[in-house]
Amino acid sequence: MQRSLDLAAQAVGITNPNPAVGCVIVCAAGHRVLGEGHTQPVGGPHAEVMALRDAAAKGHDVAGATAYVTLEPCAHYGRTPPCCDALIAAGIGRVVASLQDPNPQVAGQGFARLRAAGIAVDVGDGAAPARQLNLGFLKRMETGMPWVRAKVAASADGGTALLNGQSQWITGPAAREDGQRWRARADVVMTGIGTVLADDPLLNVRVALHGGTTPTAQSQARQPHLAIVDSHLRTPLDAKLWQIAQRTVWIFGLAARDSDDFAWAQQQRQRQSALQAQGAHVVLLPAATRSGQTHAVDLPAVVHTLAGMPVNEIHVEAGARLNGGLLQAGLVDEWLLYLAPSMLGQGKGMAERAAPLTALTDAATYIWGDCQPVGADLRLRMFKTP
Amino acid sequence: MQRSLDLAAQAVGITNPNPAVGCVIVCAAGHRVLGEGHTQPVGGPHAEVMALRDAAAKGHDVAGATAYVTLEPCAHYGRTPPCCDALIAAGIGRVVASLQDPNPQVAGQGFARLRAAGIAVDVGDGAAPARQLNLGFLKRMETGMPWVRAKVAASADGGTALLNGQSQWITGPAAREDGQRWRARADVVMTGIGTVLADDPLLNVRVALHGGTTPTAQSQARQPHLAIVDSHLRTPLDAKLWQIAQRTVWIFGLAARDSDDFAWAQQQRQRQSALQAQGAHVVLLPAATRSGQTHAVDLPAVVHTLAGMPVNEIHVEAGARLNGGLLQAGLVDEWLLYLAPSMLGQGKGMAERAAPLTALTDAATYIWGDCQPVGADLRLRMFKTP
Repeated sequence: MQRSLDLAAQAVGITNPNPAVGCVIVCAAGHRVLGEGHTQPVGGPHAEVMALRDAAAKGHDVAGATAYVTLEPCAHYGRTPPCCDALIAAGIGRVVASLQDPNPQVAGQGFARLRAAGIAVDVGDGAAPARQLNLGFLKRMETGMPWVRAKVAASADGGTALLNGQSQWITGPAAREDGQRWRARADVVMTGIGTVLADDPLLNVRVALHGGTTPTAQSQARQPHLAIVDSHLRTPLDAKLWQIAQRTVWIFGLAARDSDDFAWAQQQRQRQSALQAQGAHVVLLPAATRSGQTHAVDLPAVVHTLAGMPVNEIHVEAGARLNGGLLQAGLVDEWLLYLAPSMLGQGKGMAERAAPLTALTDAATYIWGDCQPVGADLRLRMFKTP
Repeated sequence: MQRSLDLAAQAVGITNPNPAVGCVIVCAAGHRVLGEGHTQPVGGPHAEVMALRDAAAKGHDVAGATAYVTLEPCAHYGRTPPCCDALIAAGIGRVVASLQDPNPQVAGQGFARLRAAGIAVDVGDGAAPARQLNLGFLKRMETGMPWVRAKVAASADGGTALLNGQSQWITGPAAREDGQRWRARADVVMTGIGTVLADDPLLNVRVALHGGTTPTAQSQARQPHLAIVDSHLRTPLDAKLWQIAQRTVWIFGLAARDSDDFAWAQQQRQRQSALQAQGAHVVLLPAATRSGQTHAVDLPAVVHTLAGMPVNEIHVEAGARLNGGLLQAGLVDEWLLYLAPSMLGQGKGMAERAAPLTALTDAATYIWGDCQPVGADLRLRMFKTP
């Protein structure tokens, strides 16, 4: 199963919005690998079919063999025929799967169909790492909403920039490269207009997804899309972010209401047209109704809109305002924190709430995930408790 | 050597201001432990003598045996006779030591005397962990200044309290207990008058030093002393901290100068008398000359004064002001950070400089040490780069 997980990891970021799955077919005695593979980019074969083809290409007979797969084999006709049928047709004797597929079109039907064909099925081996590889896909299938990961680079005392705005560079090159790799596996990179105006970032992927510093053909081929939360449509038409051609730029602004100032509404329409002419997908949404955010886009509506694209993973790289808005709305599933070994003292914070907390018990509770050194910095991950 | 390090670890916090050392005597063939021991509280035998006595009590002959010891055996008459002489007299054949003792009264003379007696000496095995056990002793011997460890409990975004002051409890019981254990190994716990006035803390040790929740006789016997940085001598006479009998309370206040306001100087004298009557050791020092701290005690002078007591390790549990002052003066050797899996948003910070940094390159550089989970929280250690 570990080999299947390694294969699945190689597929992360290139199969979106499909899940990244790995499959290894082993002879019944368990001592010989007959074939292996992982999910191909959308429209291409799934992991099971790749492994069957690999075995066939090597001249191996898979009758009675065991298939180790990191997700339930699909049971429906999507862009490809059901993998279940392929496994049955090949005469596989046993299937060991890490997870049941929560996709309503699968949801145990794959296992049921395999068992009906007389194939032994075991579920659960490698469940935790398999889930990590497809956090976004699984969450969207289970809840309809994408996985939201907020990435922050800060000093040990939580400063993301000096009070004068200086933030380049708090963390080192290894942490920045690692951060790009998380960016690369996401469907969408999200930022706020504050970051666009302050830093004029590209927010594209400039490293290879799976190690090394030269982008591979695959990661060059798929740039995550960009979403900008920009209530008043102030994204400059000469911003650097427009230089990246292989992605869609979504801009989420406020929809004008009858009660709005006429001049503002007119300006909003003009800016919308200009941004659309630039190639942006401008989505206008109502304002948040929470106190203190009366003239800012409703963030749950933004995330919900992206969910329907479909989008599995949103990678947020934003300032304290958008991070705080997402935090307060309960939308952040994961904080990806790079902490430098330094103490800034006064600095800009990771997240700013519309109104400061008045009781510690009101703070959202998370649990710590893995902690590891990345260059001179530490990478911490923190997950929302269910 | 690992067993010697484990023994030394058992002595940490009970031998102050002597170093915690472990010794294991193994037969020349290396397969049988003949005797073992660690340093006893001040005035008691050192590790080597304890190990020799243990071997004798068990009826083992140590002639030609190897002694594994975590620090160079002493060569001078202090409160006890030189350990070198005891090893030589016992006929030990070989000594393996982790570190040379930087104490000017030893400093290689122990090794020299052993070698002169025909004993083989190897140095370096287990050097890094042996150093961790005696950070304070080694630093004081090498530089004349104690090791300063600043402990902070905070949210993942570096908040130590809400803006309304609420701070109990950001981290969980396991982290608080672990923090007490670091407190217990220090010679002095240091805090600022802000923390005394805001939290009225005891700042004593209420857990066993080496695991468990019941204080042992040893940890009950030795409470670290308390140092309060209190420029204007405002420590209340009815503060809870006076309830702990087994320690000295040092209070560092400002010495009046001729140019000072007469009423203030008179009040300072009255408060000094009242605190002395309470049993405190009041030390009056000049003001810092740095900008923004013109009427606050000079912190390097505070630490230097404590060094002479002698004090090896200072454990700081203070607010942003004192932490920031120590940081800015370059006095913090180690940050001991407990991070809770929560995001406060706006909150009080770990450290506040008199003047905010204006360039990232001016931030003090540290390196990350170990990172490990403690209950639901993470414990991170960060060390000053030499």
